[in-house]
Amino acid sequence: MNPLEPYRRAFEEYLKGYEWMQHPTRLYEPLQYFMSIRGKRIRPSLTLLACEMYSGDYSPALPASMSVELFHNFSLIHDDIMDEAQLRRGYTTVHVKYSPNQAILSGDVMLILAYQHLEHIQPATIFRKILQIFNETARQVCEGQQMDIDFEDRLDVQRDEYLLMIKNKTAVLLGAALVIGALIGGADQREIQHLYELGIALGMAFQIRDDLLDVFGQSQRTGKVTAGDIAQNKKTLLYILARDHASPQDKKQLLHWYSLPSKTPDQIEAVRQLFHQYHVDSLCESLLLDYYHRARAAIDKLDIPAPHKAVLHNTAKALINRDF
Amino acid sequence: MNPLEPYRRAFEEYLKGYEWMQHPTRLYEPLQYFMSIRGKRIRPSLTLLACEMYSGDYSPALPASMSVELFHNFSLIHDDIMDEAQLRRGYTTVHVKYSPNQAILSGDVMLILAYQHLEHIQPATIFRKILQIFNETARQVCEGQQMDIDFEDRLDVQRDEYLLMIKNKTAVLLGAALVIGALIGGADQREIQHLYELGIALGMAFQIRDDLLDVFGQSQRTGKVTAGDIAQNKKTLLYILARDHASPQDKKQLLHWYSLPSKTPDQIEAVRQLFHQYHVDSLCESLLLDYYHRARAAIDKLDIPAPHKAVLHNTAKALINRDF
Repeated sequence: MNPLEPYRRAFEEYLKGYEWMQHPTRLYEPLQYFMSIRGKRIRPSLTLLACEMYSGDYSPALPASMSVELFHNFSLIHDDIMDEAQLRRGYTTVHVKYSPNQAILSGDVMLILAYQHLEHIQPATIFRKILQIFNETARQVCEGQQMDIDFEDRLDVQRDEYLLMIKNKTAVLLGAALVIGALIGGADQREIQHLYELGIALGMAFQIRDDLLDVFGQSQRTGKVTAGDIAQNKKTLLYILARDHASPQDKKQLLHWYSLPSKTPDQIEAVRQLFHQYHVDSLCESLLLDYYHRARAAIDKLDIPAPHKAVLHNTAKALINRDF
Repeated sequence: MNPLEPYRRAFEEYLKGYEWMQHPTRLYEPLQYFMSIRGKRIRPSLTLLACEMYSGDYSPALPASMSVELFHNFSLIHDDIMDEAQLRRGYTTVHVKYSPNQAILSGDVMLILAYQHLEHIQPATIFRKILQIFNETARQVCEGQQMDIDFEDRLDVQRDEYLLMIKNKTAVLLGAALVIGALIGGADQREIQHLYELGIALGMAFQIRDDLLDVFGQSQRTGKVTAGDIAQNKKTLLYILARDHASPQDKKQLLHWYSLPSKTPDQIEAVRQLFHQYHVDSLCESLLLDYYHRARAAIDKLDIPAPHKAVLHNTAKALINRDF
């Protein structure tokens, strides 16, 4: 059971009622296709919840929740081109279904529409502040994506670099989603600070779980090819920790595997075994739990009604278990 | 002599003093490369001039002029990927010099930085209005680019469709550049209206001149391959008018040529001859002059000091003659 279900439903309802521009068709159709693939809508749900926590009503944050989801989807569409991904949430990616050019341009207009949905936020002080947060977040997400790409050509990625990459690529948007909703709901600066910390911690835990599931999870659960990260030489936390904990001989072997343009199923399995042998799955779990505890601590500091606190706690739990 | 020279210089000075983010390098280097290729800086110059016209000082509009130029350059970088262009202003395009992926992501961050440069506009009412204009304009530019792409697969593009395409792709940004500067300078709604009309008229004339120069101009002047539009089967106004004025036999021949994936130099020359034979160059010149007169009429309606009016008139003249 998704603890954010009421907010997800409210968002879907709003999305369904939204009238997209229609012309030129080839610009707006890919956008509508991608927005209609039902994701978990975690980010817009957080925006709505955060607004309700401080104002008792989520509806003033509906347009902003759309901005957050549009931005997220814009970044996925462009990332999928760069990563040459074939599938997203089990559906054909935009650049494959349409064309790379359409994916570029539809992504661009999505980013612009994300800004357009912020246009009517009141009052003026909040409006400016939200725009600043949105800009800063958007910039960081691009930086995170670039870091991720840069890591492809490197074997020496460090733990802190990896953590900064996932912070930029994933966590800041969860933080911004909460903060933007809370600002619209009238939260003060102290609350905003705690919420941002919460979003970052959730995002970090979420991404580390993603990396773990990719290697040790079930493909039905993620909708992805299992161990795709190993196949693609992704420098995840698992790789970094294994490299730094392995014996010289195992390290040499690991670096060799990660220098190959592609791996056989046997090699992929061998990497997985090596991860397990050096307990990097447990080390990742433990770091993940650390972020989870930070998230819980941030929730406890919030000055919000108990039922909302419960929703946040359940959300944190569901997020780190990928139990949506 | 560029009538906007003082504003171009002021913009270049501001750009030179601007400290770009540096990391990740592969994200920000292509952006700086492209921004450093000296364009004519027409759009940011118009923003600065428009602000000065109403406040006597261009400097409050410097950040907004950067937004306008960043947006313009973002759109060029992404367009160049889609058009597979090798050169821009005589320099290697970003996707060729770096990679398509870097061109996508650097373009994205440029669009975000364009928004970031709008963050500090005062007062709040102007800030919101400028953001709305910026959003609307950005969306239209994407629509214009999509229409342009759509025209590639069509032989039946109509005159009005073409005019709407160039309005979106080129003219609205000139209108927005003027309007944003004027709003920062304190212009009232009546002035804003005239300035927008001026920008649109200038943009239309500018683009038609571009189409004419491509076919009948010198390559040194535009820095482009002469008659590249014919070679690439671009459905310019010249093509549309020739098709609609030609004898059934010549029309059939023209449609045949425009159905070929590529043309020989002789075929290109034959198309050019056909354009000339049906006087479509004169017809384009006459439409161009019509827009020029609309621009002049809009300038005359403005409530600004005589020297500024002279600058605008000279700018209009220089723009339609591509005399920068």
